[in-house]
Amino acid sequence: MTSADRVSPVVTARDLAPALAHRAAEYDETGAFPREDFDALRAAGLLGLMVPPRLGGCGARFTDYADVASVLATGSGATALIFNMHASVTGSLAHTPDDVARSMGAPPSYFAARDRILADAAAGALYAVAMSERGAGSRLSRLTTRYERTDGGFHLTGSKAFVSAAGHADAYLVAARAAENGVDSEPVVSYFLVPACAGVTVEPTWNSLGMRATGSHDLHLDVTVPADALLGGVEGLTLLLAQVMPHWLVASYAAVYVGVAQSAIDAASAHLAERGLQHLPAARARIGRADAAVAAARLTVTEAARRVDADPGAEETRRWAWRAKLLAGDTAAQVATSMLEAAGTSATRRGHALERLFRDARCGALQPPTSDVCADWLGVAALGGDPDRDTAVPRW
Amino acid sequence: MTSADRVSPVVTARDLAPALAHRAAEYDETGAFPREDFDALRAAGLLGLMVPPRLGGCGARFTDYADVASVLATGSGATALIFNMHASVTGSLAHTPDDVARSMGAPPSYFAARDRILADAAAGALYAVAMSERGAGSRLSRLTTRYERTDGGFHLTGSKAFVSAAGHADAYLVAARAAENGVDSEPVVSYFLVPACAGVTVEPTWNSLGMRATGSHDLHLDVTVPADALLGGVEGLTLLLAQVMPHWLVASYAAVYVGVAQSAIDAASAHLAERGLQHLPAARARIGRADAAVAAARLTVTEAARRVDADPGAEETRRWAWRAKLLAGDTAAQVATSMLEAAGTSATRRGHALERLFRDARCGALQPPTSDVCADWLGVAALGGDPDRDTAVPRW
Amino acid sequence: MTSADRVSPVVTARDLAPALAHRAAEYDETGAFPREDFDALRAAGLLGLMVPPRLGGCGARFTDYADVASVLATGSGATALIFNMHASVTGSLAHTPDDVARSMGAPPSYFAARDRILADAAAGALYAVAMSERGAGSRLSRLTTRYERTDGGFHLTGSKAFVSAAGHADAYLVAARAAENGVDSEPVVSYFLVPACAGVTVEPTWNSLGMRATGSHDLHLDVTVPADALLGGVEGLTLLLAQVMPHWLVASYAAVYVGVAQSAIDAASAHLAERGLQHLPAARARIGRADAAVAAARLTVTEAARRVDADPGAEETRRWAWRAKLLAGDTAAQVATSMLEAAGTSATRRGHALERLFRDARCGALQPPTSDVCADWLGVAALGGDPDRDTAVPRW
Amino acid sequence: MTSADRVSPVVTARDLAPALAHRAAEYDETGAFPREDFDALRAAGLLGLMVPPRLGGCGARFTDYADVASVLATGSGATALIFNMHASVTGSLAHTPDDVARSMGAPPSYFAARDRILADAAAGALYAVAMSERGAGSRLSRLTTRYERTDGGFHLTGSKAFVSAAGHADAYLVAARAAENGVDSEPVVSYFLVPACAGVTVEPTWNSLGMRATGSHDLHLDVTVPADALLGGVEGLTLLLAQVMPHWLVASYAAVYVGVAQSAIDAASAHLAERGLQHLPAARARIGRADAAVAAARLTVTEAARRVDADPGAEETRRWAWRAKLLAGDTAAQVATSMLEAAGTSATRRGHALERLFRDARCGALQPPTSDVCADWLGVAALGGDPDRDTAVPRW
Repeated sequence: MTSADRVSPVVTARDLAPALAHRAAEYDETGAFPREDFDALRAAGLLGLMVPPRLGGCGARFTDYADVASVLATGSGATALIFNMHASVTGSLAHTPDDVARSMGAPPSYFAARDRILADAAAGALYAVAMSERGAGSRLSRLTTRYERTDGGFHLTGSKAFVSAAGHADAYLVAARAAENGVDSEPVVSYFLVPACAGVTVEPTWNSLGMRATGSHDLHLDVTVPADALLGGVEGLTLLLAQVMPHWLVASYAAVYVGVAQSAIDAASAHLAERGLQHLPAARARIGRADAAVAAARLTVTEAARRVDADPGAEETRRWAWRAKLLAGDTAAQVATSMLEAAGTSATRRGHALERLFRDARCGALQPPTSDVCADWLGVAALGGDPDRDTAVPRW
Repeated sequence: MTSADRVSPVVTARDLAPALAHRAAEYDETGAFPREDFDALRAAGLLGLMVPPRLGGCGARFTDYADVASVLATGSGATALIFNMHASVTGSLAHTPDDVARSMGAPPSYFAARDRILADAAAGALYAVAMSERGAGSRLSRLTTRYERTDGGFHLTGSKAFVSAAGHADAYLVAARAAENGVDSEPVVSYFLVPACAGVTVEPTWNSLGMRATGSHDLHLDVTVPADALLGGVEGLTLLLAQVMPHWLVASYAAVYVGVAQSAIDAASAHLAERGLQHLPAARARIGRADAAVAAARLTVTEAARRVDADPGAEETRRWAWRAKLLAGDTAAQVATSMLEAAGTSATRRGHALERLFRDARCGALQPPTSDVCADWLGVAALGGDPDRDTAVPRW
Repeated sequence: MTSADRVSPVVTARDLAPALAHRAAEYDETGAFPREDFDALRAAGLLGLMVPPRLGGCGARFTDYADVASVLATGSGATALIFNMHASVTGSLAHTPDDVARSMGAPPSYFAARDRILADAAAGALYAVAMSERGAGSRLSRLTTRYERTDGGFHLTGSKAFVSAAGHADAYLVAARAAENGVDSEPVVSYFLVPACAGVTVEPTWNSLGMRATGSHDLHLDVTVPADALLGGVEGLTLLLAQVMPHWLVASYAAVYVGVAQSAIDAASAHLAERGLQHLPAARARIGRADAAVAAARLTVTEAARRVDADPGAEETRRWAWRAKLLAGDTAAQVATSMLEAAGTSATRRGHALERLFRDARCGALQPPTSDVCADWLGVAALGGDPDRDTAVPRW
Repeated sequence: MTSADRVSPVVTARDLAPALAHRAAEYDETGAFPREDFDALRAAGLLGLMVPPRLGGCGARFTDYADVASVLATGSGATALIFNMHASVTGSLAHTPDDVARSMGAPPSYFAARDRILADAAAGALYAVAMSERGAGSRLSRLTTRYERTDGGFHLTGSKAFVSAAGHADAYLVAARAAENGVDSEPVVSYFLVPACAGVTVEPTWNSLGMRATGSHDLHLDVTVPADALLGGVEGLTLLLAQVMPHWLVASYAAVYVGVAQSAIDAASAHLAERGLQHLPAARARIGRADAAVAAARLTVTEAARRVDADPGAEETRRWAWRAKLLAGDTAAQVATSMLEAAGTSATRRGHALERLFRDARCGALQPPTSDVCADWLGVAALGGDPDRDTAVPRW
């Protein structure tokens, strides 16, 4: 595909969404990996969304990502969430400026490795994120997954939880701590891109209320990887990603849940129209309030994304990311609930889009950072404190 | 069982609830009829709850029913809803005074038939309600199920929807209209107690978000019943039941949803305690507000029930029934939602009690009359109108 | 008045309420003490509501108080709140059993003093509560008001805040600590009934959003009182009252706010009826939901009151008191807000009952313990903790 | 002032806001016209905000207006609302393109008259809007204010309600219907700019819960105006303004209420900081949720404004205007309520900024179109209907 042929990724996403929606019920039912969805995304070049054009990708900004993710989510929230993880890996790498990488100690080999990872994505490789652990949540300081140097590489052992697309990704972004660390000294945490192989096994633990097709199973690691699997080429380079990841860890969910919320309105409207019930005042008022709420949540996500692109490191950018997470999660849950009341009991039948959307929409506010945590974070910030530190009360 | 042996039905229900809870996840998963639950209820004599002692039952009042249903629902909401239907049939019959029945035209044969129905329940027969039809909802005036007189009985044809325990009840309370009615003349609607038999077939349509084990499938009728299947022994006697049924159709759900809401609090509390998270202020506040909300909803149901027993026909009694429906349905949904947020994403795993309770709790406000309809009804009443008539806007 | 003549105090309150309502706008506007209201209450014998018949009173229980306060509040919330304070002083004294008082160390002189206080109330004396202090809230441990023994009495110095009816009560219930207490030793806190006199001066600080006519000004004390002003006749007897006061400090507000909430519904209904707008679906739904919410809040207050009468010291009784405070405060605020939206902008004109009720209703959740504090307290209790102790987070 | 000297109007507004805030309590208390505020706005050139530079003004777009109004409202909501009315008159005139005016029948004299009106504003004239009438609301079709042709002008008689700044404006935009209209024929409605003079008298009816200093009194008209007071120079030209006014009538309020909501957060934050209570989890969570809600409402207003500038006549622009009105009104009321709960009872004292902001914030959702009406409008639009027509249910 030449750049002249290239249509906007949002348009592509819009074209794909109906097919995603068509398949969503079945993937939700079985909890199977949405293989056809990703075949379609791959064929349309969307796995290269965040990859620079010189490596065969679309060279998208965070705002483009937010638009694409939101549109894909109108088709299938689960597919959009898996896509979100892939985009966060490729986007973080693509958006870290070379000079920043160098100043953080990235060796020359880093750039070749990075380019290969990104080029592979543009060619169709799917990446997943294996960060969370049971008991540790997503806090790097409590990681139990370890790595040791071996001849010509590293050996990783440990277990990860909530790994979307587990068993179906080509490689996993894994955070691990150096085995030699003493208990008291600061742990050295490094990132690895671990290819799917024999030592990477999936334990099918994911069987959830909503977002069932993300297949966010547990992943067990007992695997030796080559030296260049170490991301950045230097141990302890977690900051490299951590600096750009927060947007992805916080705000990128938000785009997905805006799409889910919009779909809930559309499904309820269609349901009412089919039954000739658009004139019911209570239903109409519910639709009207939902319309305004989703519009506002969408603007919040777009504003956060715009600021990520314009000034990713700014304090204010981070506040917008948390606002987007809070509002998108809460709005999706509230809107889907209200839409179910507008549509009535006939929309609770399994297989009805609203039934699935209600369950999917419920998940956003619960995914860390939860809405309660976001509210606390934003409260500290608004009161002039440092929300990453001033937490008299534990959060997660 | 002599009356001396008889323990309070509420105590019996409390004894049974843990086993119901233990089995709830599986019945929810498969959507199968909770056979073991009903074996236990039958063995404990609870199918005779509403049956007068002289016929072998507990002689319960509506308040007793509300207490028992609420307690059973802390174990399994679906089982409690099936029980609710059985109790509504037996309770309506048991609580209609003989003189009222006579004054409405019930022939002498009515009393023997009624007693047999009730004695059968005390002996373990399970009754279901087959009232709703697709398109007609629960409005008697739009019934399409027909009956015709035959030699020595009646022939019924038609289809019913939302028949809880379809395929597992011993008999179904069916509303049907006389075939000979012209289009313009007032339809004659009669009730039949149709025994489970060859002409009564189940179409497994129920596969719902919540309350899955009610198995509220469609029921197709093409069946000839003996003359004494006609309830009351006289055609057109729907009023006989309609007069006492409203409590059952409106308020009796409410008791179930109070039990479900209470279980959601208990499950969230246990979840937090297991993880040592009881000190999280946001979780604690959620539990506290839920505790108060459920306490208030329970009082409302109890007050409605008390008034049903004291003065079933009073205007004010009906208002309390609608208040109970509205508050129990909304409270259950809101409390379960908030409890899920208090417990976090780990409680959304299928098989976790909260995951099921969240889905079950969502159904109350959606079951007719929906919360929006209740709010409208109560608003008209509070404004001095006649809520059963002054509905400029269609409701269902 | 003989007991034969005596009409139920609730009926009396109902007779008085319209006149209270009629005068409420003006007292609200000026913030003046509702003198005419209390002339009417006095004439009707309601100042003796809690006083035993043998001392000339009505011998009311807490449930009677809750009913009376709720009805008075439908006329004027501010008047009902002042009445609440008077009832809490007289009710606490009247409801402490003689043997309990004796076992806590009350000397024989206590009983005569108590009877005189109560007989005076029955004869028309009005008592106020001067407990809170700026900075200390209502926590006894932080009191700064001091007392010293003098020849034949005590000298009190200090300042109190939020003293409803300040300047218009005949005597004030004052908590003070013994001056001789060291900083480290446990403070001795005693209650005094300080008559209105030269050393008791009012600083007019009360000019509030709502409940304006309570005149809850600051009170400055530099006053010598006779020995029998010491309540209970023994220093340090705060427990005597503290044991029965919680109901009054927590739940008694609740009855008032249920009355205010009911008035808001009535005022909105009248407003809609006047303008022929009862058919507006949005307004109707608001009225309907408010009707149910207030009905539930009322039941909660009644249940709390019933338990106070039946088992005042029980754990469960205390939980109900906190539930009542939380629900009444939140319900009043939410209902009044919604009623204003139902009635529209024309109801925001000063002098319109809804305008005042909206402001009055807003105050309940803010009065200590605030709704946030109640939610935390109830959460700790529901989670099996001791809500009076397990407060990792400060509350007031 | 040359354009080189000209600072951004938003910066000017930001400079003025603290002084507005400083005076707000007193104007609120007395309900007097905020004369000093308007002296300051006039001196700063803000009365010419919407006036083209060629006539001495700032040439602002609707987005500029929204920013300025929102900032002024952080100082004083009432002053911002009066300013809103002035800006709506000048903005509507300034933003109607000449060719559109000509195509609607505006004679050559229209342009000179319009320029004079705008130049006067730039020079300091203040305009008010006298559109609503008791009983007719703001519906043009029910106007009772009449006009008749006289020698060389028109005579207007009638009464208007809710005229912000009544008695303090230099001229009033008045809608009136031609007297000669028969009852059945379509009424001819025309706009006049009526100068403050002897025949224009104020009846001080405004004494409201909030936004007290708008002085939105009744205005009685019995006045003869010269021919050129007829706006557009042609009778029946209401469309000229009606086409651009909706933004002003719907969305322009929204900017004001976003400012009020922001001030409520700031006031609560300051209150908590003063008392060292920033660490209270419940307060912090309230602040955090309010921060996100106001941020989203602000974005919605900005988006609506942006679209008004880009494509004022588009369907989608109108939807955004209604969304902005709904969200800003609801958000302001909810945020101010929550901030009062965060700050506690000490913030309810009259004179405390939060006390006033709570009352001011309550008014937005009540001002037509009310939030209930907005929800209905948006619901019809989302369901594919025509929200200005498909109103089976009356709205206002």
